[in-house]
Amino acid sequence: MIKDRFSGKLKEMLSSDEWMILQPEYDPEENLKFESLFSLSNGYLGIRGSHEEGGKITLPYLYINGVFDKSETFMRELAALPNWLGIKLFIEKELIGIENCQILKFSRALDMKQALLAKSLILRDKKGRETLVEGIRFVSRANVHRMGIKLYVTPLNYSGIIEVENIIDGTIINFYDAPRFKVKHTYMTANEPLDKDGIYMEVATRDNHLHTGVGCRIEAYKNGKSILKNRMFHAFGEQGVEFGDFDAAEGETVEIIKYVSMYTEREAARYTLHTKVKEEIDGFMVKGFLEELEAHKTVYEEMWKAADIRIAGDFELDRAIRFNVFHLMSTGNENDSRVNVGAKLLSGEEYGGHAFWDTEIFMLPFFAYIFPETAKNLESYRYHLLEAAKANARKNGFKGAQYPWESADDGTEQCPDWTIEPDGSCYRCYVAVYEHHVTAAVAYGIYNYVKITRDLDFLLNQGAEILTETARFWASRCEYVAEKDRYEINQVTGPDEWHEPVNNNLYTNYLAKWNLRYVISLIDTLKKGHSKEYDTLMEKTGLTAREIKDWEIVQEKIYLPRKEGTDLLEQFEGYFKLEDVVIEKYDEHDWPVRPEALKTKRASQTQIIKQADVVMLLHLMGQEFTEDEIRKNYEYYEKRTLHGSSLSPSIYSVMGLKVGDDSKAYRYLKRAAFLDLLNLQKNTREGIHAANTGGVWQTVVFGFAGVSIGEDGMLTVRPHMPKEWEGLDFCLRHRNSRLRITISRDNSVSVKVLEGEALEVNVNGQIVKAVRE
Amino acid sequence: MIKDRFSGKLKEMLSSDEWMILQPEYDPEENLKFESLFSLSNGYLGIRGSHEEGGKITLPYLYINGVFDKSETFMRELAALPNWLGIKLFIEKELIGIENCQILKFSRALDMKQALLAKSLILRDKKGRETLVEGIRFVSRANVHRMGIKLYVTPLNYSGIIEVENIIDGTIINFYDAPRFKVKHTYMTANEPLDKDGIYMEVATRDNHLHTGVGCRIEAYKNGKSILKNRMFHAFGEQGVEFGDFDAAEGETVEIIKYVSMYTEREAARYTLHTKVKEEIDGFMVKGFLEELEAHKTVYEEMWKAADIRIAGDFELDRAIRFNVFHLMSTGNENDSRVNVGAKLLSGEEYGGHAFWDTEIFMLPFFAYIFPETAKNLESYRYHLLEAAKANARKNGFKGAQYPWESADDGTEQCPDWTIEPDGSCYRCYVAVYEHHVTAAVAYGIYNYVKITRDLDFLLNQGAEILTETARFWASRCEYVAEKDRYEINQVTGPDEWHEPVNNNLYTNYLAKWNLRYVISLIDTLKKGHSKEYDTLMEKTGLTAREIKDWEIVQEKIYLPRKEGTDLLEQFEGYFKLEDVVIEKYDEHDWPVRPEALKTKRASQTQIIKQADVVMLLHLMGQEFTEDEIRKNYEYYEKRTLHGSSLSPSIYSVMGLKVGDDSKAYRYLKRAAFLDLLNLQKNTREGIHAANTGGVWQTVVFGFAGVSIGEDGMLTVRPHMPKEWEGLDFCLRHRNSRLRITISRDNSVSVKVLEGEALEVNVNGQIVKAVRE
Repeated sequence: MIKDRFSGKLKEMLSSDEWMILQPEYDPEENLKFESLFSLSNGYLGIRGSHEEGGKITLPYLYINGVFDKSETFMRELAALPNWLGIKLFIEKELIGIENCQILKFSRALDMKQALLAKSLILRDKKGRETLVEGIRFVSRANVHRMGIKLYVTPLNYSGIIEVENIIDGTIINFYDAPRFKVKHTYMTANEPLDKDGIYMEVATRDNHLHTGVGCRIEAYKNGKSILKNRMFHAFGEQGVEFGDFDAAEGETVEIIKYVSMYTEREAARYTLHTKVKEEIDGFMVKGFLEELEAHKTVYEEMWKAADIRIAGDFELDRAIRFNVFHLMSTGNENDSRVNVGAKLLSGEEYGGHAFWDTEIFMLPFFAYIFPETAKNLESYRYHLLEAAKANARKNGFKGAQYPWESADDGTEQCPDWTIEPDGSCYRCYVAVYEHHVTAAVAYGIYNYVKITRDLDFLLNQGAEILTETARFWASRCEYVAEKDRYEINQVTGPDEWHEPVNNNLYTNYLAKWNLRYVISLIDTLKKGHSKEYDTLMEKTGLTAREIKDWEIVQEKIYLPRKEGTDLLEQFEGYFKLEDVVIEKYDEHDWPVRPEALKTKRASQTQIIKQADVVMLLHLMGQEFTEDEIRKNYEYYEKRTLHGSSLSPSIYSVMGLKVGDDSKAYRYLKRAAFLDLLNLQKNTREGIHAANTGGVWQTVVFGFAGVSIGEDGMLTVRPHMPKEWEGLDFCLRHRNSRLRITISRDNSVSVKVLEGEALEVNVNGQIVKAVRE
Repeated sequence: MIKDRFSGKLKEMLSSDEWMILQPEYDPEENLKFESLFSLSNGYLGIRGSHEEGGKITLPYLYINGVFDKSETFMRELAALPNWLGIKLFIEKELIGIENCQILKFSRALDMKQALLAKSLILRDKKGRETLVEGIRFVSRANVHRMGIKLYVTPLNYSGIIEVENIIDGTIINFYDAPRFKVKHTYMTANEPLDKDGIYMEVATRDNHLHTGVGCRIEAYKNGKSILKNRMFHAFGEQGVEFGDFDAAEGETVEIIKYVSMYTEREAARYTLHTKVKEEIDGFMVKGFLEELEAHKTVYEEMWKAADIRIAGDFELDRAIRFNVFHLMSTGNENDSRVNVGAKLLSGEEYGGHAFWDTEIFMLPFFAYIFPETAKNLESYRYHLLEAAKANARKNGFKGAQYPWESADDGTEQCPDWTIEPDGSCYRCYVAVYEHHVTAAVAYGIYNYVKITRDLDFLLNQGAEILTETARFWASRCEYVAEKDRYEINQVTGPDEWHEPVNNNLYTNYLAKWNLRYVISLIDTLKKGHSKEYDTLMEKTGLTAREIKDWEIVQEKIYLPRKEGTDLLEQFEGYFKLEDVVIEKYDEHDWPVRPEALKTKRASQTQIIKQADVVMLLHLMGQEFTEDEIRKNYEYYEKRTLHGSSLSPSIYSVMGLKVGDDSKAYRYLKRAAFLDLLNLQKNTREGIHAANTGGVWQTVVFGFAGVSIGEDGMLTVRPHMPKEWEGLDFCLRHRNSRLRITISRDNSVSVKVLEGEALEVNVNGQIVKAVRE
């Protein structure tokens, strides 16, 4: 058992192996990866799994979702905020730290069940003094403004004075290890004692002057007695450091507790921040560290009841899937509709914490089925930024609402016009100019969210308004080509970014058409049955019957390229005229090998694609295509997809299973589930791949379990269990019920109602009544 | 040749081996030692030999002499000021640095002739890219406000963009690696571009708000063409960072030059600092880096002409002695009479840059004989602080002037009342309470300075005033003991700090007596021949005939303990009654082994002493003792001295030679000369032992060369050449002449006049006329 690597109180506290992600030894080269894997988030903030004692190889970032700043960079990005992890222990000036000492024993583990990070180290310093340092940290989900660290420190072969530095580090900058990109997004407004002791630091973002306060107190106890003495506070520029020491005796354990709180002006008035933080810490200390941890664990218990997927007979994959679910669910915020989920969650700095189409297409289904309040917040986030999307459309010469390719807090386009490569070369980035399908994703997200949650209230009010404005955008984006009597979307990029730009990307055109069609029907529904909502919509949007009429024409005549006379959909106009290069070799992981042809020509000159594009369309709009169409297109494009994006394999896996090709589905899932754990994309140091975590969940639930919602709105379960699995078990919300779905090796399914009413479910083509467990 | 380890232009530039101190390989454990050894000073400031690229194990201190601050520490100490060394080079984010790369070739060398630090490294990064980085740095002595770095950077097996970070680091704090003592002595008042590029940073001391400005510019050239592009300035909190990049090509060398300037409010008004620094850098750039270096070298050429000691036949020792002379002469300041020389020069932080008795007793003779302007400044420093010394005496309940044991800028006592050990234990420090002989050292220093330099003007004016006030102190410090009809100084500590406090320390009592006697005679001289100075003195000091009369009595009746009926002087009253422990064993370096007896008792209970005490008295006041007395006491105390202080061996060496015991003298000199080079005291990381550098010089000149000034004022040379030496050659100033003294193996001496008039010299007992070379 992994917990056997920990001792005493800690061991008793930790969960069994299926919940534990272990770092069994320290390798500096792996440190940044583990910082990402071991990041903790409570939805409000996220902090990477950096070591308390700091070090040379670290990106010790803490982000509060929603605290963005641009300054002299290309885009508004999540500002690295003061890091409160710092606890340095010294014996006579010698740091007890992994980089300074010989490591006699090393274990760190993420306990996903309790959402805590545990460590157990035995470190020997240069003078041979050995210290056992164990501990846990957590960011409370019971109260997102409380977080802390508890260490158990035991001198193993010496007695003496141990010195403590309790640190809040405000020197942190974004892109800390990238000279060209380094940027400081905050300035310091306070670095002072919290109270008679402790530390309080306040920083403000440079552009908007949004203030964030962080405070902490540290205590050390032996046998329940407080023993920290000689406390001194120092403001070392942008570091707040509290010094203290205590007498340590061989074999006796000292407990060190650091209580931390953070607030921003988003939750409390600027002038109250220091008081707010102080009072929160006071309350935390009165409640007690372990009691707060208990409350936090209780919240996670409920979350896991809703979200956990259990696979019998496939231990490692079961745990890896749990890891993906853990990070995705931890980052979702059920309380704040002004934040989204960034492309790296809150675990790393790539993409600046921006929301992409990843949210709607990859992550939203998980939240809609499991945590509908969070899903609603993700939808509401888009509604809050509708005005900005309209301004964006105007700026680009279009009507309606064009959502930005990358979205931060204010809804302006955050995808930079210029990109600088690590080698310093600079190139114009056209993604924001050409890649419009994010607006389709927003529209589709509303449809899908409502389909899953039946949140008609959202649809009839906010949803309809967004869909109207996005439809308006598509209508204005389409060009009428008279000689062909059709509407076209030219100079556009679909999900496959290796062909940029193209004319008439099928995925984009199809979703534009769908958006128009869907909103026309929705408005009709409103008109017929929801006159109040209808009137409001018409008033707000200034929509006229004439405009709707125009939309009818556009959607009818929008060009959808395909190979005439066949079922083969064409990714974009002219795709089939490109050199037809096919993937022929697969490596030892069954991963496609880049065809030889790409050595002499660019992918854009061939039919080789980066990721699911037509197949993505089939995934989203499956009900509008025949099984035959889906299978043929899947087969065609699968042979031409190099999966250059982490967003690709999960979709191919789901669709492969749908058309009966499970040859690669299991391996795709494995790749996706271990993508970050094994650092398969080599960039986990930059953070967890958020879309992939959602993709993993979809692969299991939509792919292997075959969950879908039929046109009749009935939940359908039609599993394709891989031979490796003995059983699969997970929960879903559907309509007003919470269901447990249990699937056996032979694809037989049991659906039980955990909460809410009994309902009918289509299981393997049979309609069955799911009842209470 | 050491310079063969460098290439191209650098190799041509460097000096021959007797001038070079080489670090042949990189060992992190040795880094702090080499930072001290490789520190550079121009008298105005000192900067440790830290690496341009920074690192984990570093104490990258820069001090400007005179910029002190106390804040929450125990004492006013030299404030660590912003470090301007930072130049980081990156290839695609990978730092080209010794801690990050594989070191294929490593050489660093201090070129003492030119006072520059050179390096030559070949570093291979993780991706196998190899870069040759060579360079030099210097702090100009031709213009102490100019300093800079020149690097030669050559990619050996790649071409690409190299990124540069030009850094001024204001995050620096004193006692950086000692959690308990860490302190920030400055606050930042500016971190901004110098001009359209470059960096300007200004900090102020926290107590006195003394501002220091530091600015820099960086340029990169290939074939004479400026190639640095994409410049960006960032203020990262307390770091000023200028980013830039350039295209580097395999095998082509890029020259990077960093021009730096510093000014404080001591030299320029606060509001002019930025402009002053900018203009200085502009002037530096116009003049050119190599041209400024040339001017700097010319100054050093002159300094070496005056100061160099050449020993033939003993290469390593010759170079080690040069190393000591180099650091001592580099730190002396010929322009500023408000600064002294700290116990660690400007090369480390121990003792806070404070002046001790070390200045007068160990360092002053060197400066008086070689750089009399600097010696005069050291004397004037004490005169400037006479009022503070008077206040100090008053505070302690005495009259006259009591100089502080440790002296910074304002002359108040800087020796802390409390000391905290590294393990955190705290004890009361009585040094400032009991150790009064520093006041005797100041008085003796005046006498000795004038004896060597014949600066009668100083004596008759400032000197006489100091001596009067110190005499007054001693008179008030002495207690009359009626039953013994004698004056005593009780509760006092002499140079030997292992007996603290004692009654009637002979060294202290003797020098007090001497001070009184000397000033009485000086006043008499003034009265008889310098009535103006006499009147001024009487008026300034309020001295009366009655007081002088009292002094006569005190000095006559002051108790000088000795073993009655013998020549044996008693270190203090009751010393001979202590258990007589004698050193009996010597280790393989002929170093005394701590006697067994000290395992069960403290040194204070025995006659074992830390350092020269009676022997120090004999060294200073030799002319007042017979040769027999000197020999007997030397022999007695030598057997009881453990040399627990670096101030001890050199004095024993000098005195041993004087009494014909050259058995240990050569080894003592070797130990002293290599003390820092070989880190024999294990604390060279804290800085060069300043007193020891002066002691080394004295051992050679006063000991082996046997130089002294007779009672008739005539220069006497009476060498005791060790068998290891083939010849000894050095220069001195005496009266108004500069002399070259050349000594052969057989102790024959040639004295030539280099500058000034011919004069008579006593050589080996013969009076000879020294004439022009």
